[in-house]
Amino acid sequence: MQAEIITIGDEILIGQIVDTNSAFLGKELNKIGVSVYQITSIQDDKAHILKALKEAEDNADIIIITGGLGPTKDDITKHTICEYFNDTLVENKAVLTHIEVLFSKYIKTPISDINRQQALVPSKAKALMNQFGTAPGMWIEKNGKVFVSLPGVPYEMKALISNEVIPALRAQFKFPYIMHKTLLTYGLGESAIANRIEAFEDALPEFIKLAYLPNLGRVRLRLSAKAMDRAMVEAAMANQVNLLLPQIKDIFVGYEEDHSIEAIIGSQLAEMGKTLSVAESCTGGRIAQAFTANAGASKYFKGSIVSYATESKVNILEVSKSDIETHSVVSKEVAEAMAKNVRTLFNSDYAISTTGNAGPSKGDSDAEVGTVWIAIATKDEVYAEVFNFSNHREKVIMKATNKAFEMLQKEILKK
Amino acid sequence: MQAEIITIGDEILIGQIVDTNSAFLGKELNKIGVSVYQITSIQDDKAHILKALKEAEDNADIIIITGGLGPTKDDITKHTICEYFNDTLVENKAVLTHIEVLFSKYIKTPISDINRQQALVPSKAKALMNQFGTAPGMWIEKNGKVFVSLPGVPYEMKALISNEVIPALRAQFKFPYIMHKTLLTYGLGESAIANRIEAFEDALPEFIKLAYLPNLGRVRLRLSAKAMDRAMVEAAMANQVNLLLPQIKDIFVGYEEDHSIEAIIGSQLAEMGKTLSVAESCTGGRIAQAFTANAGASKYFKGSIVSYATESKVNILEVSKSDIETHSVVSKEVAEAMAKNVRTLFNSDYAISTTGNAGPSKGDSDAEVGTVWIAIATKDEVYAEVFNFSNHREKVIMKATNKAFEMLQKEILKK
Repeated sequence: MQAEIITIGDEILIGQIVDTNSAFLGKELNKIGVSVYQITSIQDDKAHILKALKEAEDNADIIIITGGLGPTKDDITKHTICEYFNDTLVENKAVLTHIEVLFSKYIKTPISDINRQQALVPSKAKALMNQFGTAPGMWIEKNGKVFVSLPGVPYEMKALISNEVIPALRAQFKFPYIMHKTLLTYGLGESAIANRIEAFEDALPEFIKLAYLPNLGRVRLRLSAKAMDRAMVEAAMANQVNLLLPQIKDIFVGYEEDHSIEAIIGSQLAEMGKTLSVAESCTGGRIAQAFTANAGASKYFKGSIVSYATESKVNILEVSKSDIETHSVVSKEVAEAMAKNVRTLFNSDYAISTTGNAGPSKGDSDAEVGTVWIAIATKDEVYAEVFNFSNHREKVIMKATNKAFEMLQKEILKK
Repeated sequence: MQAEIITIGDEILIGQIVDTNSAFLGKELNKIGVSVYQITSIQDDKAHILKALKEAEDNADIIIITGGLGPTKDDITKHTICEYFNDTLVENKAVLTHIEVLFSKYIKTPISDINRQQALVPSKAKALMNQFGTAPGMWIEKNGKVFVSLPGVPYEMKALISNEVIPALRAQFKFPYIMHKTLLTYGLGESAIANRIEAFEDALPEFIKLAYLPNLGRVRLRLSAKAMDRAMVEAAMANQVNLLLPQIKDIFVGYEEDHSIEAIIGSQLAEMGKTLSVAESCTGGRIAQAFTANAGASKYFKGSIVSYATESKVNILEVSKSDIETHSVVSKEVAEAMAKNVRTLFNSDYAISTTGNAGPSKGDSDAEVGTVWIAIATKDEVYAEVFNFSNHREKVIMKATNKAFEMLQKEILKK
């Protein structure tokens, strides 16, 4: 059983927005055993939408369409779907009531004709109630295939998928079991790993695929299996992981499930009843932001000092002026003092600090662009490591952030 | 002249990564007058790649393919392209030398056979040197159409597009002129704006399109024009903007060019020689991170205190305990004290603070989930506003961040 995702909107094709919806849809469909055959992004253009619907109907069993359901003239998806299914629009009472409630509660203006049109739904479609907006989702079936049209606003679409679409698909179809197991490795390149595990890879059974996902200092190895028999898939996967692990023992740091490494660290800290604070220079708040993006961060995350200007390292983090003058702001001494002092300031169990030069030009230090010192402080010790993350600003910031997570996780796992 | 983008990689279809490459490609192609007809994301599967190449050749003049050029077995793009063009792979001396230099400089291990295969290029292709990695880009022409295959690693792909592909396309073709003008508005919903400017929209000339892009508290109105005559396009666009502006005077805050609002604020501050600091609670570092993501942030950005735990608001930001007890941490008094005190701590001209409850559950305050106070402090005054950003964590954090930028920009523009 295969799905195709069609995302509609000029803003995607001119690069004004990044299509994050498709990744969410791919992940959610995979979880219930549906492979995504293709993602197709097209303009708000009737002929092109009709063509994409036809091709998706030929290739897939489940077609998820997002975008183009807004109330304005450039939103033509609903009318085009109506044309594709040779259908007419009818007013849906439940949707209209929902729109009236939303307006009286949040918007506090009368409903206009444009808003009222949001309640029109093709007669053959089942309306899916949109908890966070005025445009309903639509579910239409044709020859055993399912078409679902959803608004493009990410949080509206996500709620509709989780609360309406996935439960309905599971109720209607029997899906095979899809399983992914992703092993995180640090410290060895993609090709060196491939060389090392070549025999393992060649001997994989037909229904298990291996993929290498290199990303800024780490390579993820993803094993993907798919078959109707869930017990068989799970046993085969466990077997392959057992064969693989001894070969990558020195570079393996853990499994990546649905969670990011910072979410995993957060759960570990919360479970241990330990806390964390951060002092960031070159990463500029990215580490703090990554932790606080997760619900429940207040259980373990005390806070961060983004000491971007050199003077704030002295005034707020109390790094000694003479250390900065002797060793420069990008140094072992300054990184260690930042970590040590921020831990004291926030009274946390662990602290992490970054100081470096993300480029593109040299800053308050003579350090090469890409040089970053990262320090870890605990109640018992403080230590730092230096890295060179090359010459691309975004890359340096992201690599430093990833490396900080890696060092922190290694420290936590010592306990 | 139209382009199609094909992104190859199972990791996109199972939602393991978000495809950010396509947005970059869409934007860069648009700048030189090339419309993107379709973005197609497909698996690492030979038959599917061949099918996508054929369809793209039928629909577009320029076909940009990303992904699947790594050194490992799951990377099959190069061999499949070779098959599509009925070609064979030959070793490219310049690419091999480049790989040897990269290895001796950064990786410090001998080159393996797998790495050496990265230097193989189809005989009909021109190799495009990859400054940041080992896989070269490839440029192949067929019947006046151009196929470009690029690595999927974003910073490698971006450098190849900017330094090699765009200059080569401009040298080879004469493109029409595409112009977008995006007007940022705050404070009125999509449908209310559409109602207000209906007559304007209906009277737009055929070659100018209007799109509404609603996003968390702001609506962007994008006018897009395309024609061969650049002077005509620019004059017509200026004329339409002049017609539109008086109708949205009360909600218009500025134009969105290639830059984000935080980059615009950064430039304004740098130009004025003014500085900024931030105290973040519920936004958790996102405001700091947004500013420091831009090169040159050290000119105006002094730093941030992410005072996530209530005690850190007292200990580090010196918010009075009695204010917190009397008014709670999510209050006008605490927001204002945070902004005022962080400005003093960092000795900056402007300061901004956020304190609120992003959810999903209530925190150290009794405030409703979604309630956020945002304060601005200058040398002369401090003031705060309260908002309710609804009940979705990511949405609350992003809306609070956007609103903070908006309030700061309004304050800066007072000068």
